[in-house]
Parts: sequence; structure tokens; C-alpha cells
Amino acid sequence: MTIHHFQPSHYHLTLGTHPPVLRIADGDTVVTTTVDAYGHDERDVEVSPRGNPQTGPFHVEGAEPGDALAIRFDRLWPNRDVGYTSAMLATNVVDPDFARGMPERENVAWRIDRAAGTATLVQPVPGLDGLTLPLAPMLGCFGVAPDKGQAISAATSGPYGGNMDYRGFKAGTTVVLPVFAPGGLVFVGDGHAVQGDGEIAGTGIEVSFDVQFTGRLLKEKTIRWPRGEDADSIFTAGNARPLDQALQHATTEMLRWLQSDYGLDLVAASILLGQCVEYQVGNVYDPAYTMVCRLSKSILTLAQSR
Amino acid sequence: MTIHHFQPSHYHLTLGTHPPVLRIADGDTVVTTTVDAYGHDERDVEVSPRGNPQTGPFHVEGAEPGDALAIRFDRLWPNRDVGYTSAMLATNVVDPDFARGMPERENVAWRIDRAAGTATLVQPVPGLDGLTLPLAPMLGCFGVAPDKGQAISAATSGPYGGNMDYRGFKAGTTVVLPVFAPGGLVFVGDGHAVQGDGEIAGTGIEVSFDVQFTGRLLKEKTIRWPRGEDADSIFTAGNARPLDQALQHATTEMLRWLQSDYGLDLVAASILLGQCVEYQVGNVYDPAYTMVCRLSKSILTLAQSR
Amino acid sequence: MTIHHFQPSHYHLTLGTHPPVLRIADGDTVVTTTVDAYGHDERDVEVSPRGNPQTGPFHVEGAEPGDALAIRFDRLWPNRDVGYTSAMLATNVVDPDFARGMPERENVAWRIDRAAGTATLVQPVPGLDGLTLPLAPMLGCFGVAPDKGQAISAATSGPYGGNMDYRGFKAGTTVVLPVFAPGGLVFVGDGHAVQGDGEIAGTGIEVSFDVQFTGRLLKEKTIRWPRGEDADSIFTAGNARPLDQALQHATTEMLRWLQSDYGLDLVAASILLGQCVEYQVGNVYDPAYTMVCRLSKSILTLAQSR
Amino acid sequence: MTIHHFQPSHYHLTLGTHPPVLRIADGDTVVTTTVDAYGHDERDVEVSPRGNPQTGPFHVEGAEPGDALAIRFDRLWPNRDVGYTSAMLATNVVDPDFARGMPERENVAWRIDRAAGTATLVQPVPGLDGLTLPLAPMLGCFGVAPDKGQAISAATSGPYGGNMDYRGFKAGTTVVLPVFAPGGLVFVGDGHAVQGDGEIAGTGIEVSFDVQFTGRLLKEKTIRWPRGEDADSIFTAGNARPLDQALQHATTEMLRWLQSDYGLDLVAASILLGQCVEYQVGNVYDPAYTMVCRLSKSILTLAQSR
Repeated sequence: MTIHHFQPSHYHLTLGTHPPVLRIADGDTVVTTTVDAYGHDERDVEVSPRGNPQTGPFHVEGAEPGDALAIRFDRLWPNRDVGYTSAMLATNVVDPDFARGMPERENVAWRIDRAAGTATLVQPVPGLDGLTLPLAPMLGCFGVAPDKGQAISAATSGPYGGNMDYRGFKAGTTVVLPVFAPGGLVFVGDGHAVQGDGEIAGTGIEVSFDVQFTGRLLKEKTIRWPRGEDADSIFTAGNARPLDQALQHATTEMLRWLQSDYGLDLVAASILLGQCVEYQVGNVYDPAYTMVCRLSKSILTLAQSR
Repeated sequence: MTIHHFQPSHYHLTLGTHPPVLRIADGDTVVTTTVDAYGHDERDVEVSPRGNPQTGPFHVEGAEPGDALAIRFDRLWPNRDVGYTSAMLATNVVDPDFARGMPERENVAWRIDRAAGTATLVQPVPGLDGLTLPLAPMLGCFGVAPDKGQAISAATSGPYGGNMDYRGFKAGTTVVLPVFAPGGLVFVGDGHAVQGDGEIAGTGIEVSFDVQFTGRLLKEKTIRWPRGEDADSIFTAGNARPLDQALQHATTEMLRWLQSDYGLDLVAASILLGQCVEYQVGNVYDPAYTMVCRLSKSILTLAQSR
Repeated sequence: MTIHHFQPSHYHLTLGTHPPVLRIADGDTVVTTTVDAYGHDERDVEVSPRGNPQTGPFHVEGAEPGDALAIRFDRLWPNRDVGYTSAMLATNVVDPDFARGMPERENVAWRIDRAAGTATLVQPVPGLDGLTLPLAPMLGCFGVAPDKGQAISAATSGPYGGNMDYRGFKAGTTVVLPVFAPGGLVFVGDGHAVQGDGEIAGTGIEVSFDVQFTGRLLKEKTIRWPRGEDADSIFTAGNARPLDQALQHATTEMLRWLQSDYGLDLVAASILLGQCVEYQVGNVYDPAYTMVCRLSKSILTLAQSR
Repeated sequence: MTIHHFQPSHYHLTLGTHPPVLRIADGDTVVTTTVDAYGHDERDVEVSPRGNPQTGPFHVEGAEPGDALAIRFDRLWPNRDVGYTSAMLATNVVDPDFARGMPERENVAWRIDRAAGTATLVQPVPGLDGLTLPLAPMLGCFGVAPDKGQAISAATSGPYGGNMDYRGFKAGTTVVLPVFAPGGLVFVGDGHAVQGDGEIAGTGIEVSFDVQFTGRLLKEKTIRWPRGEDADSIFTAGNARPLDQALQHATTEMLRWLQSDYGLDLVAASILLGQCVEYQVGNVYDPAYTMVCRLSKSILTLAQSR
């Protein structure tokens, strides 16, 4: 149960089978940092090209294809006092005719008060002057090396994770990812101090982060899409376009999970999900969109007690 | 502010410009009943063919195309002690290859305890025997007559409302619908005692309902998609396939609303939604899917106080 | 085999169970006219509101739900010398960011030389001055009354036909439609002198038409989506969004057809379609898109001779 | 104008920045071979894992990001006498409820008569016994290294090409691809002796190929999606899901092309495409689907002569 402190010296714009920066054991904790989506570090200095630069990869000893890795986010917190966010929605989240008149996107700055836990709009914006929002830090993009030796842009997502921009990827959440390459190869990046569902402006409040996570190796645990757990619920994430297909992936993964781990057959799982499932929307800006399928633990407990 | 008690003698399988069953004034309240999706009434006797039979339409005096109608659901509650729900997910919410092995859907019964506010699974289902869920009554399908004199099946949805199957259409919620025909012509039906997001089994717990609603006429209020308000949030609903397009409709309608009623320009509305929007999934079973775009009132209050 | 000459005096903006304008027998021929999509007749005078006004409906004696109607287009030809077409692509057929700069759509006029069989651009358009295209007349919107007593806008499509805007709906083609209402109730309208695939500008060359068709009643012939036949191929049409779903409808209908009428089982039909199917794109502008699934008769003959 | 003969000794399952197997100059020709989608060579011996193994990459001297590569397919022809094809359609091209009863896919063999130019079904299949189809050889998967140093599975597609499975990629066709990596890095593979539109069974008639192509370097030619030209038409290919988005990419690329190279402004290009565009469907089986946007040269000549 070692705690590793790792200071990155380079970043990756793809999730792939890159040389590991650190090897950790099952149960170890990593304390590190991430730069913002534009490649700016805790001093707001550019240290990487833009595009959700990833810290890592971290090699988990013993992880082999067919296993899974559980990553618990212990701490996610901005490590500087300014963040940036687009001031215009993306054209793909509005009706095509409405897009006609939309100007190009420009960024605005937010002052981040880490002690108070707030972000305050810096520029004067009529109607929003000095708007202050509570911080809700989350990781927009993280994952493992994809299958087949692929190296895939940190601007999209897939079964290996990637740029899912889901608000639920916050401190206290555990994410389980399939292992496709030896060591799994964990990447983390793209911290958001605050973000609405869908990342519909194409950004959250983009900021560099302090990140602490703990990895656990689940041997011979075959999963097809990211799974997770937080205080309230278990959940699965599907990544694809259109959202309909992302929803299919997430729902099917939840069905498999209920069947394999919770002793429910397809009928029981259907009844439970049919009346109790919740969906939440992750990224709807990338090439692949993200839909999250959730089932509350209180419902599961009800079912499990039968 | 009359309270009308209306007992239906026939039902409609389409929302269209049908002869009104009752004329009400701005501000009036209607107390009525709806049959379940299969056309069964409070005695569980078939009184209509299946397909979300609608009670109504109710003509609101003075409503003209270009106006809007605000419908507040005052009371939605099952009026019998048994409900039915599909015991198999729909094939369109799972991966196509997973659908290969899925059996046809069959219904199971739930005993509804209206005093206790619970629904309990009647049949023995391994893993779920006697599962009891709290009631969360909502209307699956309601709306007004569509534009152009159309009459559209109560199994789908559009700008006029319809079969949106959104959990948020519950007592205490106010829905605003565009008026396309003189009198607006309000329809209500398809009560669900409980329902998961998306109605992914193709049903909620289908049951006949007591319904009480109050209608308010908003003259010269042009909206394009259903809008609503509950204790926490304002929201818009988009109905289309794929979900991506439903999301575009809902987001665009929210932008219009923030611009016209809350004094925000496109930049301010983009910043606010970009960091604070929430999406919720309505029906993903019908020809048209439903996506709901929400903004919390606490955020709006923050913005409004600028 | 009567030939009926019918001159319309009113038009419908929905396909629905409207009072028939004429009753015809199995095998009868109708010679009539249609106005253009804007409601302008052969004198270019507005005689109906815009929105693909339909001529009809024509009641086919003996047609009942569960039957099908075969409509052969005998003659489709413009009946005036000017047509109109949008001079700007629709925003939904380009990338959302590209839509940003697109101006509103305006119409340009074409001079139609019916003797020469050509359409010539009237306005000066740099790079296209005097462009002359050969006429390829087709019906954009036609169909029967939908199921459940629905009345659906002539701006969209479904199992009953509607605004499919498929270039293959030309003289010599036979279309088979399911019967949902007594008499079937055939509507015709929305003639295009020329049109590209998809109707991606939102219009073809819109013009009023002389239309002659012959109806044949197929008793107890249950089909789910429009089917057709021309000199080269048999085909099916699916109408939905996204195109992926339209393709699913069309492909499934073709599979059913090959199984029921051509003696192929699912394996044989899969092998044949897998190597020989062709797809063509109908409307991609409406709420519902259209995909056509085709199989050449020469291939079918090869298979049939086994 | 050297002609290089290259015999591959290894294959790639991803298109990426892999070490080149050969360096060629602008205008050079490569004569090589490809294995089938399952990794079987001209002796039908497995020499690679399955998954559209790619021959290459071929480095084109002088090619830099911002350039484009024109690849003319000079000769594509099976180099063995047996091919394989799935005997069951993919579940994603049929209606979800129809998928319920579909069996798993199995392969059947075809005897390829290279002299006669035909493929004949080997197994007895009721209704298709001995079915013989004319060969129509095409490359299912080819392309260049993607941007950002990505390495992407040969089972999908993108701006760099990939598994597009478009029947138009046949001998005589020239494809133009954007250059993202030094040398471009050309890959070829996945020959189909015959294939229906969409590759809806998940395979064409899969066979190893003799491939001859000629590469031409287009300096400072920035394109965003594959473009092409054959005897009849110019065309663009968009790769994405749903097909609607693939169509947007292809249409937008065609607009850019008409504007930059054919002297048409957006109005003229809209008029021309609106009345004359053709779409053809490539792969609808992969994670990314392919739509091809075509404009006939005869129409372009008409326009160009203005």
C-alpha cells in the first residue's frame, strides 16, 4: 500500500501503449498532477500542446488482458487560481438552424478560490457579473490503453475510458476499467473545476489539478465498458454516437453486471431496471458521446435482501 | 376558478383536433380519471383499445394558436390496487447482438397499496420476490392538439407533448405547451405508479389514475417545445430521434427561454448552461425519444441577482 | 379498368382519414393534377397554403386494413413552365460548425421546357448561368391514410408513405403501400421536375404536375413499409431518423419479402443481400429520413432459377 | 516513376505511425499483396491475426502534414480461388425486434474463378445452390496514418480512411487522403471479391488480393475527408455514426471542394448539389459508418462551361 508521489515531465495526447512513467502494485496510491486541457500547468504556463494532455501511464503490476482495474479517485482538486471556459455553446448541441447565427467560441476566465471552494467569473458578462459557483471538481478524461495496441486521441472515448466528461467522476468515486495491455496503463487528465452535463460548451472550467488515486487489480474480471460506484449508486458508462448507442452499451453492461454479480436473471434485471434505472449524460461534444446507466444501492439492497 | 369534475365516457388513441369533452376557463381546475395504457379503468375492466388512451380533450376558452397553456398537475394518484409492467427490456435499449437472445416481453403484476404509497411485485421472481417500491406517480402521455390539424398517435411525441414518459411529470410540476388549435385541447393519460428513466421496458407500472390539473392561459406566448417548472428547476423537453436531436431541441428551447424571459444574451446563457445545465432522459422506447434540459432555480437566482 | 379524370378543388396538408374525393375500382386509372409544394397550381397561382398540399384522397373499393395497394405511376410530368428551388443547402446536411455561416435560404426559378424535357436556371448565378438539366420528374410526397385514424403532416413520412422525396418514385415505378383505413385513401402531391438525392436543399425543382396512376388492390397482403418495383429492381423504403433506423426498417422489410414471396430462408436472404444489396438515399431533410433498400431483378432471377 | 514490387512479411491491425516497409517517390507504383480480413494469405494459410490486417505502411517521400496523397488503384484482383462470407446479416442493420430470432453468424465459402471473373457459392444453400456472381473486386480497408500519432483499429474509419467498405474503391478509382504524418504512410488491405452496399453481413467475399497502386503527392493540399474520382464522378467520403453525421461530413467536404477548386460560391454549389448530388452507402457495420457524396463529371462539365 505504497503512496507514490509522481511529478510528470511529459504528457500524452493519446491513450495508448506508451512507456510507463511509474510502476505501482495492487492497492498502491498515486499522488500526481495534471495540466489543463490546453496543456497549461499549475503556473498557467504551457508545458504541452493542447488536447487534454494526459499524465502517465501508470503500470499496475500483474494486470493482464482479461483483468480489470478499479481506480478510486481519492482527491481531485484544482492546483491554481484561474480556470477557463468557453463562452459559447457548441453548434452540435443546438438545432442546425439555430447554429446559423452563432459566433465562434471564445474563452472567459474564472477566479478559483480553493479555500472557499468557489469559482467566480472574472470578465464582466451582462446578467452574470461576478457569478460565483461552488467547485465540483471532476476528471474529464482518463482511462487505460485501448485494445489491439491502439493509441487513441484524448479528445474521444471508448471501452477503455477516455474523454467522457461525466460529472460523476469526482473524488470518492471508484471507476472500473477493462485491461487491454499488460499493466493496464492508467492515464489521467483534463480536470474541470465545474462542468454542466454534457460539456455542451466544449469545456468545463478547465484547470490544472492535484490528483490522488488508488488502484486495485481485479484478476480475471472481464468487463466491456467502464463501470463505477459512488456513495449512492453503481453505474456503467457507454461511449458512442449517437447517444442512443451509448445508452445501449451502458444498459447492456449493467444487465451483464446484474446477471454476473448480483444473481439476477434477465427477467429480474429487466424488472429492476425498468422501474428503477437512472440515466445521466456525459460528454455530448466529442466524436463519441457518453451515457451513464445508474442503479441506486438502496434499490440493490432491497433486491439483494430477497 | 371553477373546479370541474369530469368522468370520461370515451377515450382517444390520438392527440388531435377532436371535439372537446369540456370547456374550461383560464385558471379552472379539472378533476378527472385516466385509464391505463391498455385501456383498463379503475375496475381493471377494458373500456378502450390499448395504446395510451387519452381522456379529453379539454378546451381552454380563449386559447388561440400563438398562445401557450400552463398545466399544473395538482394531483396524480393511482385509483386501483393493481398495476402491470413488462418483465423484459425493450430490444432497442440493448446492444443489437445482445437482443439476439431476448425473449418476447410478458407482463407481471404489482399490488398497489395506495395508503402506504407502495407497489409490491405479486409474482414470484427469483431475486426480487416481494420487491416493494415507493410510488412515484407520473403521467406518461399528455399534451395538446398538434399543428396543421394533425392527429398523432398517443404512442409518440412532438412539440405538442405526447408520450414523453418523463419522471418529472408528477404532482407539483407545471408544464407549458404551445397552442396550435383553438382551445388548445388538452389530453391526459398513461399514468405510471413507478417508472425508471427512459421507460426502457416499454412500460412503467401501468395503472389507471385520478388526475387533477389546473390550466392557465398564457396569451401571445410563443414557445416551440414543452417547458416546465417544478420545485427545484425550470426545464424544457425535446422529442425526436436520435436522442442527440431531442437534446438539440431541448437545449435550443432553453436558450430561447433564457434570452426572452431572463434577460441573458447568447454569451451569458452559454456560460450559465455550459457549467450548470442538467439533462434527464425521458422516453427512449417510442418512435420519438425525449430529452429534458434543466436549470436549477438556485442557479437562476444567482444569475438573476446580478 | 375505368380511366377517371379528376380535377381537384381542395387539397390536404395531412395524410389522414379525410372524405374521399373519388371512388375507384381495383385496376382503375386516375388522371389528375397536383399543385407544387407551395400550393401553386398550373398557372402558378396560390390555391392552397404551402406544405406539400395533397390531391385526394382516392378511395379504392374493397381495400381494408390488412390489404395492400399497388400504385403504378403511369405518367408524371410538369404542367407549367416555371419551377422553384432553394438556393441554399439545409443546415442539417452540413457539419454543425459549417452551418454557422450559412445564410437563410432563398428560392431561384427554373424555366421548364416541357417539349425539350429540360429545366434551365433563370437567374444569373456565377458559375451556373443558364445551367440546363434534363427533367427527371418524380413525386416527392404521396401515400395512404396512416393507422389509428391518424392525420399526419405532408412534411414527414412513415409506414404509410408520405414525404419520402425518393428519385425512384418516377413514371414506370410501382409502389405498394399497406392499407390502414377502409379504401386505403390514396394521396398524391409535391412534384419535382428534378431533384438530387436527399432533397438536401429542402426542395427539388418544385412544380405543379399532371399525374396519372393506376391502382391495384392486393387482398390480404400484409406489409409494414412501402415496397416498390421498377424496370431494374425491387425495393423497400424505411422512414425514420436517424438514417441508421430507416436502413433497419428497409432492410427488415426486404428480408420479410424475400422470405415470404421468393422462397428464401434467412440464411439465403442474408447471403444474397450481403453481396448484392444496394441502398439509395431519399429525403434527409424532414423529421423522418428515407432509406431505400434495393435488389436487382437480374440477381433475383439468378436466385430464382436455382 | 519506379515500379516497386513488395512482398509483405508482417501486417498491422492498426493504421498508425508504424515504421515504413518501403519508401516510394511521388508518381511511383507499388505492386504488392494483401491477406484477407481473417489474416489468410494467397495459400489460405493464416499469417496474421484476424481484423483486416494491413500491408504497409508505404512512405511517400516528401509528404508532410498539410499535403494530400492521391492513390490510384491500378489493379485489384483476388490471388486465390476461395473466398468466405458471412451467411447471416448483422443484427445492427435490422429492426431490434427482428434481431431477437437471428442465429449467430457462420461463414460460407465461394469458389473464385479468376479467369472467368466469377464467384460461385460452394455450399448447398436452398434457393441459392451454385449461385454465381460476377467479381467486382474492391479494397474494404486502406488509408494513411491518422493525426496526433494515433494508431486506430483497421475495423473502423475516420478522416484518414480506414475500413470504409465502399464498393467504389475499385480499380480505376483514385482516392485522395489527407497527410497527417511524415510520408503519409499508406496502408492497404481487406480485399473483397464482391460486396453489397453497406457490408451488411459484416463481410464481403473475403479474399487475399494482388494490389497495384500509384501514389501522387499533392503539396499543400489541405482536405478534411477522403476525396475520390472515378470514370463517372468526383466524390467525398464521410465516416461517423450515425449515417446522418457521415452524410454531413461528406456533403461539407464536397462543398469545400466545389468552392476551392471549381470556382463555385456557396449559392452555386448549393443549387448544383441540391438538384444533382448522389449518395452511396459504404460500411454500416463498423463503429463508424461511411456515406459517399458524389457529383457526376457530366454535370460538373455543364457547370464549368458557364
